[in-house]
Amino acid sequence: MLTVESTANTGRQYLPENPETLSPNQSLMPLTATVNDQDHLVVGGCDVVELVEKYGSPLYILDEHTLRTTCRQYRESLQKYYSGESLAIYASKAWSCMAICAIVDSEGLGFDVVSGGEIYTTLQAGISPTKIYFHGNNKSREELNFALDSGVTIIVDNFLELEMLAEITGDRQATANIILRLTPGIECHTHEYIRTGHLDSKFGFDPNQIEETFTLVGRHDYLNCIGLHAHIGSQIFEQQPHKDLGDVLAGWLKKAGEYGLNLEILNLGGGLGIRYTESDDPPSIEAWCRNVAESLEAACLKYGVGLPKLIVEPGRSLVGTACITAYTVGSRKVVPEIRTYVSVDGGMSDNPRPITYQSLYRSVVANRMSDECNETVTVAGKHCESGDVVIKDARLPTPQPGDILVVLDTGAYNYSMASNYNRIGRPAAVLVNEGEAQVIIRRETYDDLVRQDCLPERLRQI
Amino acid sequence: MLTVESTANTGRQYLPENPETLSPNQSLMPLTATVNDQDHLVVGGCDVVELVEKYGSPLYILDEHTLRTTCRQYRESLQKYYSGESLAIYASKAWSCMAICAIVDSEGLGFDVVSGGEIYTTLQAGISPTKIYFHGNNKSREELNFALDSGVTIIVDNFLELEMLAEITGDRQATANIILRLTPGIECHTHEYIRTGHLDSKFGFDPNQIEETFTLVGRHDYLNCIGLHAHIGSQIFEQQPHKDLGDVLAGWLKKAGEYGLNLEILNLGGGLGIRYTESDDPPSIEAWCRNVAESLEAACLKYGVGLPKLIVEPGRSLVGTACITAYTVGSRKVVPEIRTYVSVDGGMSDNPRPITYQSLYRSVVANRMSDECNETVTVAGKHCESGDVVIKDARLPTPQPGDILVVLDTGAYNYSMASNYNRIGRPAAVLVNEGEAQVIIRRETYDDLVRQDCLPERLRQI
Repeated sequence: MLTVESTANTGRQYLPENPETLSPNQSLMPLTATVNDQDHLVVGGCDVVELVEKYGSPLYILDEHTLRTTCRQYRESLQKYYSGESLAIYASKAWSCMAICAIVDSEGLGFDVVSGGEIYTTLQAGISPTKIYFHGNNKSREELNFALDSGVTIIVDNFLELEMLAEITGDRQATANIILRLTPGIECHTHEYIRTGHLDSKFGFDPNQIEETFTLVGRHDYLNCIGLHAHIGSQIFEQQPHKDLGDVLAGWLKKAGEYGLNLEILNLGGGLGIRYTESDDPPSIEAWCRNVAESLEAACLKYGVGLPKLIVEPGRSLVGTACITAYTVGSRKVVPEIRTYVSVDGGMSDNPRPITYQSLYRSVVANRMSDECNETVTVAGKHCESGDVVIKDARLPTPQPGDILVVLDTGAYNYSMASNYNRIGRPAAVLVNEGEAQVIIRRETYDDLVRQDCLPERLRQI
Repeated sequence: MLTVESTANTGRQYLPENPETLSPNQSLMPLTATVNDQDHLVVGGCDVVELVEKYGSPLYILDEHTLRTTCRQYRESLQKYYSGESLAIYASKAWSCMAICAIVDSEGLGFDVVSGGEIYTTLQAGISPTKIYFHGNNKSREELNFALDSGVTIIVDNFLELEMLAEITGDRQATANIILRLTPGIECHTHEYIRTGHLDSKFGFDPNQIEETFTLVGRHDYLNCIGLHAHIGSQIFEQQPHKDLGDVLAGWLKKAGEYGLNLEILNLGGGLGIRYTESDDPPSIEAWCRNVAESLEAACLKYGVGLPKLIVEPGRSLVGTACITAYTVGSRKVVPEIRTYVSVDGGMSDNPRPITYQSLYRSVVANRMSDECNETVTVAGKHCESGDVVIKDARLPTPQPGDILVVLDTGAYNYSMASNYNRIGRPAAVLVNEGEAQVIIRRETYDDLVRQDCLPERLRQI
């Protein structure tokens, strides 16, 4: 972090930091980032400029070492600080694709999925269904059947789902493992769109419905309730909300016992933030796990319940810092005395977070890493929309057409939320590791863009 | 419109209005909307409930008659009020797919496209390149070559593009028809993300660069400048900005003549809004065309220039009202004294406008059209995100699981901005007309969702 602060003072670009001293979620760059003797940014041993020459731009570049490191830090920190059994499961919604599933699985993590499509992707990657937990406030009957066919654990959100599951499992005469999602009524400081733990939330059973829920669950022969879940939100830097959450859930665990439900799992959700800009200051993965583990142990002691299996659901903090997006700079437009626009060859279709959440990002000119930042520009996308701004007021070394502009920390909620707005194909993604690059997502072609289109015969031109 | 106001007073749902008295962009419903004796909403002669039974939900339902009517109203109004030649071109970014291209083309309109993908889609629909105009603030060299290969007209946005085009056409020794996009410096009242005419815009040549631009263009042998373009924004209800724009552009047309450029086209962009809620009050298509036409004629008279060919670029007002989205209602969650959530089987992936622009929509329960609106609910999507709200505080007849909830006016910027967030497949679209329904966009399957994924051999599970 010293490096970042000093570069801000000297007007230099953000240079790679010392990976030994940082938790990956506290770093602006992937852990393997360096600068080579051509003054190019290097990630995973691959020259970013050469990657763009070979694979085109925009290009998502995923650093395998950073991803594996975040996975290990979660797994090892939970083992270190929690006396009971523990499991980190990857919140796939951050970025669900087969290659990421395979890497995360090989590091011993499980999976939190939120749709039939995410179940399908995870299974296609060869993951065991016993490691998959299925979320969602409005699962369809088809999705529930798919989940039951596959053998994944279902995290039940509401009464309708409970009824539907009771009916389906009754028809099948086959038991399903379920976890109940509860709304804990905990406020935290994050964007309202991604805050989920407060009472006014579409997710989970309301606290005043808990006893009714426990009673109902106990009545159904084929529903085997194995735990409770609650989630308070995303991109959170505070520690207190999870301390409170441990207490709330341990109390409900005790209450469940009073209703004859002997539960083995408490899932405390995810939510740890990452460092998008130098003003973001999230706790380390280790500190976050320690807080969650110690809070839950203390709460279990307080309520006199045995230690459950602790599950946490990190998403952003696992994959966010591991990826960068490389763009090629195109046109510049100077509006005298107002602003200079620098356009890149992607934008809101490959990263909708700035236009949706007013999210801030940092960037570097990857082909001139040691150049001074001597210009403030607005990095605009190529979409036909004024709101298509990647970074407002970025401080950079005068970006010129042909420069490779790299936006940092794009692993979470970029590809997963990408669209084909303006019929622009979604970018490719490459996985980099020890100097090797492999395509993990193919770039969409023009043919891909019209693949779903049907032109009825009567509308065809003569 | 009487119907709408009276239903608001009596607590009834929005019922179909009298199509004879309304410009399509002033109606909440597609023009063919009726209610049948089963009390179901009918569009294009098709029972919406039956459409969902057959094609599933979510489902985009596009009413061909409404789309053809908006096209005709633009074409005929321009002919009626403008003494010179005129052409309306469809802003494809509102919704680009082959079937819509074919319909719009058959009504005599041209096309405004903003990417290689939109050029490709339009050509695949069999449209002549002479009717296609290519926009964009950062066209790639590949896109420019594709445009030149195809013979579409290029609307040049900036100096870099002008240089690139001069170089490419020089190499080819083939003349390209171009139009210059200028920033008019006109403010209008709309969301800042879709306001494009003010000076602080990434689009177009700055007013103080006009003389330099005209000089440069005149020097290039293979660039045949045929007109000027300016666009002030989208979803606009005021008429004054286009009056001002006519004046500005006619003045620049005169100035171009002084630089030896004899231009035949002025393109005044689009921007006419539609009625999403009862408080929206846009002018009719006819009134909008009349204002644009008369303002331009007056301005040409004032500057002493001959009448150019007038081009306008409507998008939202052509297709917005023509489409509705049908969802199936799933879970209900009552948060005591706070809010009732009703979840549907789609959301921010098929309509990102509410989460992106805080856009408002109106909805009806399509299987009980005459029921009283007796409940205020928040219609939530099925995505794993608190911000995934389709309509906040919708007044509806207590929506129950299995109800078909229809959101109105979803033709523009819904499918075109759709994503696979949470790996949820994008919906199908059907075209309805005189009781017939035809699929124009296939629903995405689980296989479609993993189509671009590659799993490197070394990551495969043993």
